[in-house]
Amino acid sequence: MATVTQLGAARLPTQAGAKPGLDKLLGLVGHDLEAVNQEIVKRMHSRVALIPQLASHLVSAGGKRIRPLLTLGAAKLCGYRGGKHVLLAACVEFIHTATLLHDDVVDESDLRRGNATANQVWGNQASVLVGDFLFSRAFQLMVETGQLEILGILANASATIAEGEVLQLITANDTSTAEEAYLDVISAKTAALFSAACRVGGVIAECPAAQADALESFGRNLGIAFQLVDDALDYAADQAALGKNVGDDFREGKITLPVILAYRRGTEDERAFWRRTQEKLDQRPDDLEQAQGLMAKHGAIADTLERARHYGLLAHRELALFPAGEAREALAAVVDFNTARTH
Amino acid sequence: MATVTQLGAARLPTQAGAKPGLDKLLGLVGHDLEAVNQEIVKRMHSRVALIPQLASHLVSAGGKRIRPLLTLGAAKLCGYRGGKHVLLAACVEFIHTATLLHDDVVDESDLRRGNATANQVWGNQASVLVGDFLFSRAFQLMVETGQLEILGILANASATIAEGEVLQLITANDTSTAEEAYLDVISAKTAALFSAACRVGGVIAECPAAQADALESFGRNLGIAFQLVDDALDYAADQAALGKNVGDDFREGKITLPVILAYRRGTEDERAFWRRTQEKLDQRPDDLEQAQGLMAKHGAIADTLERARHYGLLAHRELALFPAGEAREALAAVVDFNTARTH
Repeated sequence: MATVTQLGAARLPTQAGAKPGLDKLLGLVGHDLEAVNQEIVKRMHSRVALIPQLASHLVSAGGKRIRPLLTLGAAKLCGYRGGKHVLLAACVEFIHTATLLHDDVVDESDLRRGNATANQVWGNQASVLVGDFLFSRAFQLMVETGQLEILGILANASATIAEGEVLQLITANDTSTAEEAYLDVISAKTAALFSAACRVGGVIAECPAAQADALESFGRNLGIAFQLVDDALDYAADQAALGKNVGDDFREGKITLPVILAYRRGTEDERAFWRRTQEKLDQRPDDLEQAQGLMAKHGAIADTLERARHYGLLAHRELALFPAGEAREALAAVVDFNTARTH
Repeated sequence: MATVTQLGAARLPTQAGAKPGLDKLLGLVGHDLEAVNQEIVKRMHSRVALIPQLASHLVSAGGKRIRPLLTLGAAKLCGYRGGKHVLLAACVEFIHTATLLHDDVVDESDLRRGNATANQVWGNQASVLVGDFLFSRAFQLMVETGQLEILGILANASATIAEGEVLQLITANDTSTAEEAYLDVISAKTAALFSAACRVGGVIAECPAAQADALESFGRNLGIAFQLVDDALDYAADQAALGKNVGDDFREGKITLPVILAYRRGTEDERAFWRRTQEKLDQRPDDLEQAQGLMAKHGAIADTLERARHYGLLAHRELALFPAGEAREALAAVVDFNTARTH
């Protein structure tokens, strides 16, 4: 596995250098994931044809399915033998997809860059409404599991995600955003769903309370690590591997940890650069390269990844509560996969 | 009460001519509604201050609170003695408010008319996200009632509302929209929540299945009647009493029953007028008056209101299953209030 020291450069290692960390989990619950995908297709159905059209544009585009995989993995870890984990995993993916659809609308600058996001193809209105539909579908699926505790966990996570997104909106374009405020945003907008995805996998298996808490903490720390790596990749990834444009956050003035660190450690001239490009959004052709140079100078990417490694370690530790075995190894490998991933 | 014949003119009677139909229900459950309002304020709270700010802009703006009133009234009708109907009524209002926030974003032309909608004051992004938050809060409230059946009813209603909104998006600006397609849209986008609001009031009181079904049908028919009157008022109301602009639907090219009827009964020249103003949205200063004139000529408003009266009668009939008394009278009066309302 690529070490954090190796990752400290402004460019991350290629996929070839990373352990295939999701493969273990896929080997263990691949059959279940197939069932999840079938459930997703089935549940996207609506008599209003535009709904499955738009939803499948995003859902079928693939993605890592990391959140439903976590639900399946957690259920496996807790020895679950029933079939409801499949419904739950589909439900987690629906909540995630609804969030993405609304994000694409909220994130107006995505509209300007020629990416074929759903809102570009079908308009903002349809994206908002289909997001609402998927969100409602998620709750219908939860009702089918027949467990109020699970509904509570996912309703709480959904409220927290929305809070985190609003918080992110408030901190956007403010270069003086503190590291704590940033961590607060990513804990809410990203880690809350990772955390809930893991906990419900245990709860459906009727695991002891201590294990449910450990799964929740595992998910939260993994989620924070995941977003930290995402935010580093937005400045440091190989564009082709990333599958989206490098520099999206920069163009939007989204204040992530790499910017916070480079700004805090920067000279007055450098801070003026960040304020111009990130607060006023007054950007010139070479500004992204300039930003990447400043991040390299101040070790901003390396330290963001170091932070991710730290949260990854915390996630690892939570797994100690569970018996050793394939499922535990597979979930541990997801943490390592995240630390080493390049897209 | 103003009769349908009286309502047949292009202008509706003033409030003074209508029975104070909500007063009976308010007299019966006014104390509960006070508790609902307190619950709403309490549950809008978030550590992210923008959320209660934006939400209260809409929630505290008043409105008739007709949906939560229906939940309270249905619970009363079924002899409910507990306190969970207050949570449920708040939850119904949250779902409604979330829908309104997203509607304001979807309904782009509202942005152009100087109304201080939440999206105008705080932007589309915040409106989408706060809508998501309120929707999540609604499900958190439902979990607190501890009844999966209720969660199922409201999750189904939410999915149906979203389907209806997408359907409305598809039929917008299409003057050839059939009456059936229009009824389909309003059944989903409006009547589904009226219907669920009534049913959950009975279910929380553990009423017999036949009564729950009757409440659902009462709500559905009342909801359809409510939307029909709304759509008539958008062309025929006294602007000051309506509290929003007359002609909103016209300016947006929203194809409602008055337009469908006037188009169907119109000459070729008149149809060309509707296609120009509603499909191409090519509108001139006197076009709204022209539209109102054509509706008067073809009895389009009168017949829309006649249709509302019909669904009102269907709603009335569902109440026969319940014992006579104050609660039944109060719910019957809501139907009459709707038929006679001017805003």
